[in-house]
Amino acid sequence: MSDQSALSRVRVVLVQPSHPGNIGAAARAMKTMGLASLYLVRPKSFPDTEAYTRASGATDVLDRVVITDTLGEALIGVTTAAALTSRRRELSLPVQWSRDAAHTLGQHVLANEQVALVFGNETFGLSNEDLALCQLPVMIPANPDYASLNLGAAVQLMCYEMRLATTDIGLAPAMSTAMATVDEVEQLMQHIERATTATGFFDPSNPKRLMPRLRRMFSRIALERDEVNILRGMISFFERPLAHRRAGTIEAEARADSSES
Amino acid sequence: MSDQSALSRVRVVLVQPSHPGNIGAAARAMKTMGLASLYLVRPKSFPDTEAYTRASGATDVLDRVVITDTLGEALIGVTTAAALTSRRRELSLPVQWSRDAAHTLGQHVLANEQVALVFGNETFGLSNEDLALCQLPVMIPANPDYASLNLGAAVQLMCYEMRLATTDIGLAPAMSTAMATVDEVEQLMQHIERATTATGFFDPSNPKRLMPRLRRMFSRIALERDEVNILRGMISFFERPLAHRRAGTIEAEARADSSES
Repeated sequence: MSDQSALSRVRVVLVQPSHPGNIGAAARAMKTMGLASLYLVRPKSFPDTEAYTRASGATDVLDRVVITDTLGEALIGVTTAAALTSRRRELSLPVQWSRDAAHTLGQHVLANEQVALVFGNETFGLSNEDLALCQLPVMIPANPDYASLNLGAAVQLMCYEMRLATTDIGLAPAMSTAMATVDEVEQLMQHIERATTATGFFDPSNPKRLMPRLRRMFSRIALERDEVNILRGMISFFERPLAHRRAGTIEAEARADSSES
Repeated sequence: MSDQSALSRVRVVLVQPSHPGNIGAAARAMKTMGLASLYLVRPKSFPDTEAYTRASGATDVLDRVVITDTLGEALIGVTTAAALTSRRRELSLPVQWSRDAAHTLGQHVLANEQVALVFGNETFGLSNEDLALCQLPVMIPANPDYASLNLGAAVQLMCYEMRLATTDIGLAPAMSTAMATVDEVEQLMQHIERATTATGFFDPSNPKRLMPRLRRMFSRIALERDEVNILRGMISFFERPLAHRRAGTIEAEARADSSES
């Protein structure tokens, strides 16, 4: 699942796109997901400045576009062509949802095959003849009352699914924060109990559910070490006689911290 | 996982969107995935004809837009706000990938809470102050060399993930074709063996791997009943003496079909 060149074996084929802006949007969508191979079958207008404007930083994808007269030519060398379709048809092949289709295509890609994602015209979709050249009809599970995805948006979704199906995206960026240990949280709990007993808010002879409730809350938030120190510093200042509180300075806080830890 | 109203508890919040076209694209993307609640914080221009043009059939989403002065106002009533971010920052919260975040948000939605997907300005993203109001930083696992998703495309991806995380999409549309049974395929195999023995192509005394290879092929394609009938009809015609072949008409084919089945 970590073959970096896998996505280079996925080509996007737009059949008879009407709006050059959509070609640019498709190029941008492809590049954001690591795809680069774009084929256009009988585009209405290409090259076109509108395509280049909408491509933003993905004009290199447009520079390498392959234009063909037929879908068959655009699929030369491909083992599995997935046809995006938004409506039920008289198909002789079972349809797969986008996520399952990406998994299926991903298996072919990881087996070193070339695959294609084929998108029809914005208005009339794919012809039955073109659909017959594709091995895998695919539907995006859209709102049945309004399934009209923009062409660029459909390309974006499928490229995203292909990226997830073939690339090891690793863990999401993590913060390098130190978690508090169980004993540090326990010391915080004891500090709270001591301080709230002193104020009279907590009555050890009639404890009710206060400490369990606080313990549950602290468990849930997965305290960091710095957070435990901040809370204990705050409590230390609450513990001081009122007259002393206004004397609080950075030095005073530092003393409170060191005296408690 | 089949709560149809779950998506009504997901609001999309665009903070300071610069391009009205992107507001329209976001509305369209939302509606295709069944979302309807759009908030705009200090939009540069709204209402705007460009937004309505790009929204296509989703202008009803624009008609119900809520405009606020601050992100805080747009998040009133929300328990979990997810902030889409495209770069690492000095965050105090762990980041989740889009798919995992949709799962997390989906749990809140299914527990009857309101959640928000928050998207920043096209150029400068979200301010640190706005980010601080969000509980869940989210990243789309884009190409690290070009992670510049169009705003509408990012909204499309997250709404798609939310739909998959909260809605029972059911099975993909299936064809009502009758599969061939094992015995029907077995009769086809026997028919092929008989016919190819007659032509001399197959030698039963030296069978090699022909029949196992054909059996493997037929297993893989999961033959339908109609397909078995077509193949047997074809073979029946091959079996006839050459002189009779030209007599083939629709009636002849029908006879062949009925005599074999």
